[in-house]
Amino acid sequence: MPSCAKWHRHQNHIKSIVWKTEIQENMPDISKKTTTKFCNLTQFPLLLAHPRYFNQLSTGLDMVGLAADWLTSTANTNMFTYEVAPVFVLLEYVTLKKMREIIGWEDGRGDGIFSPGGAISNMYAMLLARFKMFPEVKEKGMSSVPRLAAFTSEHSHFSIKKGAAALGIGTESVICIKADESGKMIPADLERKILEAKQKGFVPFFVSATAGTTVYGAFDPLIAISDICKKYQVWFHVDGAWGGSLIMSRMHKWKLDGVERSVLKLTWNPHKMMAVPLQCSALLVREEGLMQNCNQMHACYLFQQDKHYDLSYDTGDKALQCGRHVDIFKLWLMWRAKVGRVLIANVVLFRSFSSINIPSRDSHHPQHTNVCFWYLPPGMRYMEDKEEKKKRLHKVAPVIKARMMEYGTTMVSYQPQGDKVNFFRMVISNPAATFEDIDFLIEEIERLGQDL
Amino acid sequence: MPSCAKWHRHQNHIKSIVWKTEIQENMPDISKKTTTKFCNLTQFPLLLAHPRYFNQLSTGLDMVGLAADWLTSTANTNMFTYEVAPVFVLLEYVTLKKMREIIGWEDGRGDGIFSPGGAISNMYAMLLARFKMFPEVKEKGMSSVPRLAAFTSEHSHFSIKKGAAALGIGTESVICIKADESGKMIPADLERKILEAKQKGFVPFFVSATAGTTVYGAFDPLIAISDICKKYQVWFHVDGAWGGSLIMSRMHKWKLDGVERSVLKLTWNPHKMMAVPLQCSALLVREEGLMQNCNQMHACYLFQQDKHYDLSYDTGDKALQCGRHVDIFKLWLMWRAKVGRVLIANVVLFRSFSSINIPSRDSHHPQHTNVCFWYLPPGMRYMEDKEEKKKRLHKVAPVIKARMMEYGTTMVSYQPQGDKVNFFRMVISNPAATFEDIDFLIEEIERLGQDL
Repeated sequence: MPSCAKWHRHQNHIKSIVWKTEIQENMPDISKKTTTKFCNLTQFPLLLAHPRYFNQLSTGLDMVGLAADWLTSTANTNMFTYEVAPVFVLLEYVTLKKMREIIGWEDGRGDGIFSPGGAISNMYAMLLARFKMFPEVKEKGMSSVPRLAAFTSEHSHFSIKKGAAALGIGTESVICIKADESGKMIPADLERKILEAKQKGFVPFFVSATAGTTVYGAFDPLIAISDICKKYQVWFHVDGAWGGSLIMSRMHKWKLDGVERSVLKLTWNPHKMMAVPLQCSALLVREEGLMQNCNQMHACYLFQQDKHYDLSYDTGDKALQCGRHVDIFKLWLMWRAKVGRVLIANVVLFRSFSSINIPSRDSHHPQHTNVCFWYLPPGMRYMEDKEEKKKRLHKVAPVIKARMMEYGTTMVSYQPQGDKVNFFRMVISNPAATFEDIDFLIEEIERLGQDL
Repeated sequence: MPSCAKWHRHQNHIKSIVWKTEIQENMPDISKKTTTKFCNLTQFPLLLAHPRYFNQLSTGLDMVGLAADWLTSTANTNMFTYEVAPVFVLLEYVTLKKMREIIGWEDGRGDGIFSPGGAISNMYAMLLARFKMFPEVKEKGMSSVPRLAAFTSEHSHFSIKKGAAALGIGTESVICIKADESGKMIPADLERKILEAKQKGFVPFFVSATAGTTVYGAFDPLIAISDICKKYQVWFHVDGAWGGSLIMSRMHKWKLDGVERSVLKLTWNPHKMMAVPLQCSALLVREEGLMQNCNQMHACYLFQQDKHYDLSYDTGDKALQCGRHVDIFKLWLMWRAKVGRVLIANVVLFRSFSSINIPSRDSHHPQHTNVCFWYLPPGMRYMEDKEEKKKRLHKVAPVIKARMMEYGTTMVSYQPQGDKVNFFRMVISNPAATFEDIDFLIEEIERLGQDL
C-alpha cells in the first residue's frame, strides 16, 4: 500500500509538529483526561481524504476544489457586500440560480444563500417558514404566535430539533413521524400527526422531509408528503443536505421527484456527495425577498442606501451572519472544471453502487451510498436471534472500530437505530475510493472482529 | 507604487478568468441590472489585504495565517468529533483555555467554541443566557417563558437584534440604551430602562455591552454595567468581536477592565484586529457544561456513548452546527509563530495610533483604531452650520467613495450615525498599512472631493 504509507508519513509529520509544541507545553493534563493510548495521536492516521475513510458523509479531497479554496483564502474577503467581494457575490448569484433551475423552479427564480453547514441551513428553513406564516414574530417574538408544530421523520437529522430549540419553538413541538423499514417517512402517519396536533391546539407550520437520511440514506416520498402539506397548508421543506446532489444525476434524480414542490426551500450540501471541500452548504428558497424580509436589520454602516451600485447585490442582510465566509468559489470552479455540467456525483455513485459486494453479511438494501450492515463474528453466527445475541452484537461494532482506529488502517461509523443494535454504516462519497478500498474495509472488519 | 500595480495585475487576472467564463455566458442580464460601468469589475481593484483598504474591520493577509489556512483546507476535516479531527480539537481546547486565562477567569476554567462569525457568537450568547435562566425553553419553547427583555447600546452591532428575531424573542424586546457623545453606553440609562422593563412586566435576562463598537470603536464602561447586571440579576455578555483583542495589549487592555466579570460569555473575533484569515470568531463561556446542556441532541450516529475515548473531546453537540469548519489552526499557528505570546494586535495598534494625523479635519477622538471624520470640500468650509450644510455634507462621502471605487486606488467606509450625517470611518487593522498609505487615503479624499 504505497499510497497509504505516504499518507501516514504526511499525517504523522503534521501531528508531530503541533503535538511537540503547544499541546505538551500547555496541556499536561491531557494525558490524565484520556488514556495514555489515545494521547498518541499518531494512532489516528486517517484524514478524510484517504480512500479508506468511510466514516463521514463528507470525504475526499478534490484538487480543483482545493485550489479554489486556497485562492479563496488568499483573497480573504467577505460575502456581506458587493463592494468587498464583487466576483464571489456574482458567482454565488449565478450558481444559486443554476441550482434552482436544476430543481425545476420556474426560470430558476427564487433566492438562496450559502450557509456554514446543513444544520444552519435547516435552521434558516424553519425560521423562514415561521416568518412566512407569522411575520409579526420578527418584532414581537413567539409571544405573538400560537403554539407551533413542526414535523419530521424519526430518521431525520438532529438539526431540526436543534433548530427548534434555538428558535424558541422547543423540541417538544417537533413531532416525529414514523419511518418504514427502509427509513422513509410514512405519509399516512404524517397526516395523522398533523390532525392530532391541530386537535391539541397546535398550529402545524413546517414539514421537513429528508432526501437521503444520515444513517440509512433513505429518501422520503416527497410527492405524497407535499400533497399532505398542500392539503393542510403547511410549509414543505426538503433537507437534501446528503441526498440533494442526486438531482444532478440522470440515473438517480427520480429519488427526488417532488422536490420542485418544496414550496419554501431546500438544503443541499455540495460539500458532501459533490466532494467540495468543507464548508459548502446551500439553502435554496423559492420566494424572492423572503430571506431579506425575515432577517434584514438595515445596518446603516454596512448596507448604505446611497451606494452607487445596484443594492440587490449586497446580500449580507438576508443572512443570519454579518461577515460570511466565501464558500462559493470551490463549488463554482469544480463545476466549471468538470466539463460543463458534468455530474460530479455520478462518478462517485456509479462506482460505489457497483462495487459493493457483501452478500454474505446482513446488509441493508441501499438507496444511496450508505450501506448499513452488521458483522457477525464466527462465534455468533449460529446463535438464536434472542436478547443474548442482540446484547453481544451491540458490542461488536464499537470494539472493531476501536481496534481499527488503533491500527489506523481504515475508518467506518456505527450506531444503533430504533430497536436495531449497533451496526456499521459505510458511506462512499470519496471519488478516490476504489474496489480494493471497499474490499479492504470488509476484510479488515473480519480480521479485527473474528475473535469476538 | 510598484506594490499597488502588482496587486492590480493579480486582481485583474483573477477577475478576467471568472468573468469571461461563467458570468458572461449565463448571466447576460447582469448588465441590465447594474450600470455598464459596474460590470467592469476591473474597476474594483482592491482586495482586503491591500494596505490601502480601510473599508472593513477585518483586513490584511498574514502569511502564517494563510499557510495555516491552506493546511486546514488540505486536511479538509470537521470539528464535530475527536476521532475526525483529533489535533484540531485539542488545539481548540488549549487555545480557548488560554483565551479564558487571559480574560482572567480562574484557571482558565469555562467553555467556548469557534463559531462562523461574531453575529453567530452573539446569538449563542443570547441563547445561553435564555437557557440559563429558563432551561425549560429548550423543550417547551418560548411559550413556557415570560416576556423577556435584552439590553444593548444604541451603538451596538445589529447582530443582537438579528439574534433576538431568530431566537423568537423579537426585536421589540431588545431595548436600546443611550450612548454618550463618544459612543459609550450610559450606565444610568441602562438602569432606568431595566426598571422600566420590569414595571411593564418584562423579565430582563441579557445585557450585551460592546468592547469596540463598529463605527466609533467605543468601549462601554464594563465595570459599571456589570454592577448593574449583578444588582438586577441579568446575564452580562461582552461583544468584543472588534475590540476584544485589545486584552492582549499591555498598553490598551484597561479599556476592557471589567470583562472578567462577564458572568456568562464573551465574543472575540481574532479575524479582525488579530489579522487571522476569515473566519475565526471565538465565543468564550464561563460555565462549563452550559453550552452542552443548552444545545445537545445526543445524535446516536455521531456522539456514540460507547466510544473508546474520552467523550468530552467530542465537542460537536454543544454547537448549533453539525459539521463545523476548522477555524482554530490559523489562530494557533499565528500565535505560536509570533514568538510566544507576542501581541499581534499591538503591532498594528501602535502604528495606527501614532500615524493618524489629520488635525485640520473634523475628527472624532479615537478609542480604538476607528477614526471617524467628515471631509469638508473647500466650497463648504465657510458655510454656516445649518440644515443646508448638513444636507450637502451628507452627500459628500457617498460621491467620494463612488469615485474612489472607480479609480480603485483605496477604499474606506462611510455611514450616518444618529443625528450625524454621512461621515467617513477609516479602520486600521492591516499590519501591512504604512504611514504613506494613510496619508494617501487622506490626500485621495481631498483630490476626489475638492469640487463638491
